[in-house]
Amino acid sequence: MKPIKEIARNYLPILEWGATYNSKILVNDLVVALIVTIMLIPQSLAYAQLAGLPAEIGLYASMAPLIVYAIFGTSRSLSVGPVATTSLMTLAAVAPIAAQGSPEYAGAAVALALLTGLILVVLGFLKLGFLSNFMSFPVMAGLGTAVGLQIAAGQLTPVLGIPAEGGTFLAQTISLVKNASQISVNTAAIGIPVVIFLLVVRKSLASLLMKIGMGKGLAGIISKLGPVIAIIITILFVSGLGLDKQGVKIVGTVPAGLPSIALPPFNLALWNQLLTPALLIAIVGYVASISVAQTLASKKRQHVDPNQELIALGASNIGASLSGGFPVAGGFSRSIVNFEAGAETPAAGAFTAVGIALVALFLTPLLYFLPSATLGATIFVAVLSMVNIKAIKLTYAYSPTDGIAMALTIILALTLGVIAGLVAGIGISLMMYLYRTSRPHMAVVGQVPGTQYFKNVDRNEVITDPKIVSMRIDESIYFPNARLLETRINELVSSHPELQHFILNCSAVNSIDASGLESLKAINQRLKDTGISFHLCEVKGPIMDGLKKTQFYQDLKERIHFTNYDAVYSIDPDLAKRTLEEIRK
Amino acid sequence: MKPIKEIARNYLPILEWGATYNSKILVNDLVVALIVTIMLIPQSLAYAQLAGLPAEIGLYASMAPLIVYAIFGTSRSLSVGPVATTSLMTLAAVAPIAAQGSPEYAGAAVALALLTGLILVVLGFLKLGFLSNFMSFPVMAGLGTAVGLQIAAGQLTPVLGIPAEGGTFLAQTISLVKNASQISVNTAAIGIPVVIFLLVVRKSLASLLMKIGMGKGLAGIISKLGPVIAIIITILFVSGLGLDKQGVKIVGTVPAGLPSIALPPFNLALWNQLLTPALLIAIVGYVASISVAQTLASKKRQHVDPNQELIALGASNIGASLSGGFPVAGGFSRSIVNFEAGAETPAAGAFTAVGIALVALFLTPLLYFLPSATLGATIFVAVLSMVNIKAIKLTYAYSPTDGIAMALTIILALTLGVIAGLVAGIGISLMMYLYRTSRPHMAVVGQVPGTQYFKNVDRNEVITDPKIVSMRIDESIYFPNARLLETRINELVSSHPELQHFILNCSAVNSIDASGLESLKAINQRLKDTGISFHLCEVKGPIMDGLKKTQFYQDLKERIHFTNYDAVYSIDPDLAKRTLEEIRK
Repeated sequence: MKPIKEIARNYLPILEWGATYNSKILVNDLVVALIVTIMLIPQSLAYAQLAGLPAEIGLYASMAPLIVYAIFGTSRSLSVGPVATTSLMTLAAVAPIAAQGSPEYAGAAVALALLTGLILVVLGFLKLGFLSNFMSFPVMAGLGTAVGLQIAAGQLTPVLGIPAEGGTFLAQTISLVKNASQISVNTAAIGIPVVIFLLVVRKSLASLLMKIGMGKGLAGIISKLGPVIAIIITILFVSGLGLDKQGVKIVGTVPAGLPSIALPPFNLALWNQLLTPALLIAIVGYVASISVAQTLASKKRQHVDPNQELIALGASNIGASLSGGFPVAGGFSRSIVNFEAGAETPAAGAFTAVGIALVALFLTPLLYFLPSATLGATIFVAVLSMVNIKAIKLTYAYSPTDGIAMALTIILALTLGVIAGLVAGIGISLMMYLYRTSRPHMAVVGQVPGTQYFKNVDRNEVITDPKIVSMRIDESIYFPNARLLETRINELVSSHPELQHFILNCSAVNSIDASGLESLKAINQRLKDTGISFHLCEVKGPIMDGLKKTQFYQDLKERIHFTNYDAVYSIDPDLAKRTLEEIRK
Repeated sequence: MKPIKEIARNYLPILEWGATYNSKILVNDLVVALIVTIMLIPQSLAYAQLAGLPAEIGLYASMAPLIVYAIFGTSRSLSVGPVATTSLMTLAAVAPIAAQGSPEYAGAAVALALLTGLILVVLGFLKLGFLSNFMSFPVMAGLGTAVGLQIAAGQLTPVLGIPAEGGTFLAQTISLVKNASQISVNTAAIGIPVVIFLLVVRKSLASLLMKIGMGKGLAGIISKLGPVIAIIITILFVSGLGLDKQGVKIVGTVPAGLPSIALPPFNLALWNQLLTPALLIAIVGYVASISVAQTLASKKRQHVDPNQELIALGASNIGASLSGGFPVAGGFSRSIVNFEAGAETPAAGAFTAVGIALVALFLTPLLYFLPSATLGATIFVAVLSMVNIKAIKLTYAYSPTDGIAMALTIILALTLGVIAGLVAGIGISLMMYLYRTSRPHMAVVGQVPGTQYFKNVDRNEVITDPKIVSMRIDESIYFPNARLLETRINELVSSHPELQHFILNCSAVNSIDASGLESLKAINQRLKDTGISFHLCEVKGPIMDGLKKTQFYQDLKERIHFTNYDAVYSIDPDLAKRTLEEIRK
């Protein structure tokens, strides 16, 4: 049993950085919090809209998670809150269950956050973070592109005022085209300029500011204020011209005040429906968070603990749920703001939460005239960077199976919806992986004359003998390829009628699993039935440790050799010692 | 385009062996067929009973598949027909859909065979045999044990006359215990002696016959006649004493005649329900068949083509379906009979089909008094050899994760049913695999003094330097472990404050997939942000070929070295040349 202090230190990283916290860091973190609060307001409102939820829920989801993460998180810079992918996945999970705008809808989103959090915490305590490996790069990158495209298409509704419906990119796009004539000119007159403004600010403002002598960090931060500026201007514009009465949709009354802390109602049928989406949101959110956290940590030679991050992200989601919010994750854009503003500790995040609470308490009336078009434009511009079609081509060039897996993930997510696409993508990715690893390179090798080296007979002038075949497999022997090894050896046996000794060169074999061992046993037995001796050589130490526990080792041990040369020497010393000159005589 | 002749030869192996067929082989194959026909009758009837189907359907499923396999199959010895596992899976798939004994039940079984066949043929033409790799050894072995236990428990109903119900081992066992008092003494009086007789015959008859001078082959064949003898004796016994009127269940009227060839009715809803079971039966049947085929082929240095076997087994199932049968596979016990009787070509199988047809035409009246208890006893004894609990322990000792996967597969199959257990087993097996491969061995290495070798710093006295860390990863870099590599390098960076150069030794890396490449890119970027140079060394040729197509290679190429020594030399020649003596000075 570990002492309680150590356990507490492992699970509560706040004890570590809290111990050295001082007034200088405090002032720094407070300044950071002020900046970040201003940046996060538009994001929080926009992602709530994306998830189909009222604006105030976006604020709720941006408070408790920051405070909880400050207690449990190991990253000094990660900012946890609503992000694009998990918000869209929330919409996809909850929309089939309840009508948007109903209390049931908000309730289901809250329950989804609780489940997501519980799953993450359980994975963390059981140290099951490896499950996130199912989200291979092709799946995550493909999902990012599909999510980006679907969100961008979906935001054309608030930006242009074109009504559209459908849970997939395909359905939404068809609906948009059909209803294109119903465009709201007043809405588009706000939405389109805001999109252009945000694109220009994002692309050019930082370099412009740097040209006129501003520091890189400050310029970067100010260039991210675009959404805030757009919100202020469009609020003034809409309220000044009374556009809300001329077809421009506005946020309207945002209830002031803090969320009440409450458990979501326990509803087994609902939880059952939400379980798979919660698992996927948990893993997708985790993979994105850990990647951001590691990138930012390494810039300051800090360390992030992947298992503790599961617990921290899980606790943050539980925090979101208990305070009426929806699923959250560590976002790239929000974390980079935090990092560039100079956050020293997670306390900056906690102070940000206080800032957002102050907004929720006192400033919501100012948001009344905020047009949905502005929020839509903010999301539209933010998600464009998620779309990366070129990645398919680059990935395909490097690894065709990975490229195909990525392309299929995108296509299925766009046509069947993000959750179905994600599940299919994982399946396809695993199949492609099995396909690739089920075909390892195997080469018949022969002795390089006058040396003890054995090389591929097809590429080198080497010595071979009809009664001996040496083959090297350039992969671990495990279930994806074990049966192919059997087949290949069967082929070699039937094509070498004089064969008496078969030598398997294991120099590139890092491990042999139980399926691989069974195949080796079958190979040994079959070769024996045919009157051929089976030899192994160059077996690595850790594999030998395992083999020594088996009957297979007892049957074979005289025929396990250190090198391929030793194996041939044990069969026919003269053959091993021959040189090419002698053969040519 | 390949010439039509070559295509025909690829897909119709009969053209190959048929060309050299002669009267000597014919006589041999006819004798083999006679022996095998006698052996197969009890099996065919028993497995039909196991699948919940009338006896004659067992005969139907034993004709067409043998003829079709003779045309398409590449194994000279494989015998295709009803086997234990696929029969139980048929029961599990069809029982929830229709009531046993109804025409719908038989119709669903026929449709299941068609779907199974179509899936196999498609997999064969698309060369997707690698999908069978999902059935790793732990899953197949676990499934075998679970199927054996469930069938054995289920056969206690016909053997002892105890009524029982339930689709799982657990439910059946509970039901058997509850109803134990309803045992039929007359039935048990037949069932128990037959079980004992069959066990004794199987265990001792062959060695007894060999002791009295009989050849091994003949003794082996005769010892397999136990079920035939039991059938004959118990038919005489029941009919002589009129036991069918005293509670002993008999087979009753078996309609004489051959099956009519017909397409199963097209019913999309039914097919949809049967799709998953059909896929699983296809893959399980294929894995079992190919393993038997390869084992028998290698005994005669013959060759089996795994992709053509998919087509042959698929065509056999389609044949079974069109002639009113249920799913079939290449069985171990039936094939071994064929092999030991000396089958020279698949024609022996075709002649066996003729033999069974003659039985179906003329001998079914003799089967009227056959007690179900005898068939139950035949199955009970046959499946006992499938149960291998010790395999869990042995597998666990060699590879704990594989042992756990096997144990969980068995437990879930016994409690949730074979199909659910199989699906869960595949999932668990994949998770366990990810778990294991997500933790590859990684060692920081240092230079062995006075040499160019680099070895593990924890196990050897080696030269290191605070500004350089060399690390070797003993596994391919791919999605299961790519993120762990990032984490490990982050840890090393934060624990080596003076670090300036990080060298990744790839001597044990056989491949790098797209996820691995992304991680290497992230590592390179993060190290750069920290002011550390990233180096690679000992990268294998095929990996270099792929890397050369990437931007990553362009960024790094000056820092990709042939050996670890070269890498250190490029950083600090003096350091590379130092010896231990100098350091100690």
